Amino acid sequence: MAKKLTKRSEDYSKWYNELVVQADLAENSAVRGCMVIKPYGFAIWEKMQAELDRMFKETGHQNAYFPLFVPKSLFEAEEKNAEGFAKECAVVTHYRLQNDPDNEGKLRVDPEAKLEEELVVRPTSEAIIWNTYKGWIQSYRDLPILVNQWANVVRWEMRTRLFLRTSEFLWQEGHTAHANKAEAIAEAAQMQEVYATFAEEFMAMPVIKGVKTDSERFAGAEETYTIEALMQDGKALQAGTSHFLGQNFAKAFDVKFATKEGKLDHVWATSWGVSTRLIGGLIMTHSDDHGLVLPPKLAPIQVVIVPIYKSEEELNRITEVAKELQRDLRNVGVSVKFDNRDTHKPGWKFAQYELQGVPLRIGIGPKDLEKRTVELARRDTLTKEFVAKDEVVNKVKDLLVEIQNTLHERALDFRNNHITKVDTFDDFEKVIKEKGGFVSAHWDGTEETEDRIKKRTKATIRCIPFDADNETGSCVLTGKPSQQRVLFAKAY
Amino acid sequence: MAKKLTKRSEDYSKWYNELVVQADLAENSAVRGCMVIKPYGFAIWEKMQAELDRMFKETGHQNAYFPLFVPKSLFEAEEKNAEGFAKECAVVTHYRLQNDPDNEGKLRVDPEAKLEEELVVRPTSEAIIWNTYKGWIQSYRDLPILVNQWANVVRWEMRTRLFLRTSEFLWQEGHTAHANKAEAIAEAAQMQEVYATFAEEFMAMPVIKGVKTDSERFAGAEETYTIEALMQDGKALQAGTSHFLGQNFAKAFDVKFATKEGKLDHVWATSWGVSTRLIGGLIMTHSDDHGLVLPPKLAPIQVVIVPIYKSEEELNRITEVAKELQRDLRNVGVSVKFDNRDTHKPGWKFAQYELQGVPLRIGIGPKDLEKRTVELARRDTLTKEFVAKDEVVNKVKDLLVEIQNTLHERALDFRNNHITKVDTFDDFEKVIKEKGGFVSAHWDGTEETEDRIKKRTKATIRCIPFDADNETGSCVLTGKPSQQRVLFAKAY
Repeated sequence: MAKKLTKRSEDYSKWYNELVVQADLAENSAVRGCMVIKPYGFAIWEKMQAELDRMFKETGHQNAYFPLFVPKSLFEAEEKNAEGFAKECAVVTHYRLQNDPDNEGKLRVDPEAKLEEELVVRPTSEAIIWNTYKGWIQSYRDLPILVNQWANVVRWEMRTRLFLRTSEFLWQEGHTAHANKAEAIAEAAQMQEVYATFAEEFMAMPVIKGVKTDSERFAGAEETYTIEALMQDGKALQAGTSHFLGQNFAKAFDVKFATKEGKLDHVWATSWGVSTRLIGGLIMTHSDDHGLVLPPKLAPIQVVIVPIYKSEEELNRITEVAKELQRDLRNVGVSVKFDNRDTHKPGWKFAQYELQGVPLRIGIGPKDLEKRTVELARRDTLTKEFVAKDEVVNKVKDLLVEIQNTLHERALDFRNNHITKVDTFDDFEKVIKEKGGFVSAHWDGTEETEDRIKKRTKATIRCIPFDADNETGSCVLTGKPSQQRVLFAKAY
Repeated sequence: MAKKLTKRSEDYSKWYNELVVQADLAENSAVRGCMVIKPYGFAIWEKMQAELDRMFKETGHQNAYFPLFVPKSLFEAEEKNAEGFAKECAVVTHYRLQNDPDNEGKLRVDPEAKLEEELVVRPTSEAIIWNTYKGWIQSYRDLPILVNQWANVVRWEMRTRLFLRTSEFLWQEGHTAHANKAEAIAEAAQMQEVYATFAEEFMAMPVIKGVKTDSERFAGAEETYTIEALMQDGKALQAGTSHFLGQNFAKAFDVKFATKEGKLDHVWATSWGVSTRLIGGLIMTHSDDHGLVLPPKLAPIQVVIVPIYKSEEELNRITEVAKELQRDLRNVGVSVKFDNRDTHKPGWKFAQYELQGVPLRIGIGPKDLEKRTVELARRDTLTKEFVAKDEVVNKVKDLLVEIQNTLHERALDFRNNHITKVDTFDDFEKVIKEKGGFVSAHWDGTEETEDRIKKRTKATIRCIPFDADNETGSCVLTGKPSQQRVLFAKAY
């Protein structure tokens, strides 16, 4: 049985790490900065994948797979992108191990098996994919290309945290090619919308849509569309980004197409991705001091049934009712686990499923059999009630919807209460320091000011939001004219 | 439009390569030996994954994810396994690129970013996983662990072929931990059975079940269970393997558990995997000189509807009927594409879908509208018939089943006609050289004889089959006593 979690109010970061490990979601591995995603954590990722994959396909995308490795010469073809990722690349230099004559029984890299050209382990796949698209695209008839890939990528991070920032992570990366600028921009905007819908409707995580400033933009992009969420500790989390890449990669890889009018033009591009980082965001949006809280739509187990019994005979009678309930619930599409293990006591199981965030728990004891009731416990509110057995299926169906909505509302209230308009730099610093959350402030539009604010407060511009008022003002730091408020925050 | 394929009888290998590329399944990439799996090829892999994943889950397995990299010291902990894979490992030695002062604008590996310990890109994950399981297993209560991972692996192959042998490939690898030997053996056997069922029922590819000899066994295994298929050119293909690993990895990584009786024992292990190589097997089992032939259960598109029209008005009337058909077929679970692109002619489309192995093609022209018929063409037999529109849905449902069965029967006949019993080495050589296929022969059980036969004929022992007669005899090469016939073949 796991130890009690550190309270969020005591040490949010410690609470997070303990929760991830104790709820069996993930753990650190023997490889610096790389995590092991345990079955329960991976089951959440599978639920996320299934929904996202469906949404990608509904918007006309197909999956494909491109190589893990990028030859150095391709990697550096688009200069800004290469510069953006060069400092965090794992590099393969050799292709063979051999016995080390100086260290018997041990292996060493075979110095004769040096690659002619080093291979970069993909930190993102624009380079290898655009080099491939060159062979796929001759004319406007070959466009658009709407491709996504589910893959692992590696970014050699110096400071890592489970799910939030790991040297290897799982993600999907969409890479599309278009015949004109407007279509590519529409695609990038559409995928931001898909991500926002997924975050709101499945993760129950409110997000703010906007675009990044120059300094926060994806390396090689002309515009980065982002969805930004707010965690319980007042820090923002970039939850998904979609990039309009202009013709940068087409130019770098010489990808031209014959237009309908018979001219040659460079192809327009987008890329977009979300990663296992979303699981970190999910945890930090809903969970509490008792452990994980999961929105029903992404919970690997929506309902757990725990029998409470003293004798074998009691267990048998309870099992009969439990299995009937399990079947009835499954018939209406609810995922149910009946935990009849005799190696653990009911109390242990209650604590475990609370820690693991199972939305609903059904307890059945001998008295329940008599009264034809069950005890139904909600994870989100930690409340319990007795429900007539015949009403359980309908009650569960209703509650799963209600919990999903409650979690979203709760998170939305918190987020809305943590967007603070400020007009002076004193207030700016105070809010960032004391309250946290998003600070909505005027900014003069320069990278220099952004940088100075970051140095003084650790807050960065999370996005220039789409839904801002058309309000002019003066930059909170320099007093220079500003066209609209932007959202600052400290961020993960 | 693609060029005509080389005939199988002319050059099987060339036919295969052309088919893979022209049917848009995969292509070579800029990275030596690594392939790009194109959307149509990847869609087949997704169908395979979905069925296999369901079968794994039905047998109690869960998915998880382990790091791509294995520190060298862990990699070499199980000596046989390390020895088996050392010569084909991609090795990461550095984690950063920098601008090269001697070569302006270019990047080079930063010599100061050398890793203290080299990282092997996983060729298989036993080492990293058993190092992880050490932390998961204390007592018999923690067992069994039934985990699978879908992942990419890298084996630096010198001679590669699309799908069949690539330096990077996609696969699943199951890794299970058990409290006793019998249970681990039962698991390994069960997964062989799962693979066999998948091959026969979904791929329509007959397989022979058996075990590997010492020399063909997985490095580090005590027993390797295999399924062996036969390709049209008479070469065998190892289509899936399941390994009983004994306590080898538990000993190498010191994974012990407290038994029910309170003793400490090493854990028993299995691992099992199939890969994108299966797509190569699928192609070489069913396809013909016209291109790919797909069993309906794995076809991304089961039915394609092609309109044949001269005027916009005709197209509109055909579209109405086609969309109705598409909806009706989808309602009964058939995947249907309606290809109404005006950029390609019907003849081009017919050829393309034939090349891509779509099981059924429906053509609708103006005359069909009059007669209330459609033209229905089968890919497997290349036959066509007119079918009354009202009967199409039932006809299609029946035909999809029939095609699946026909493909299996055809492949089974071919396979059975290519198992030849021989009792002299002359006959052995002759069959291997002239007819190909499996040669069923007596063997004295020694690695030396196996090796000599391989050197003389290029044939290896594909497996010691389970269903062999209990027949003793004399080794086909040495004349020494033999307990049963084994199956030799040249293999991919």
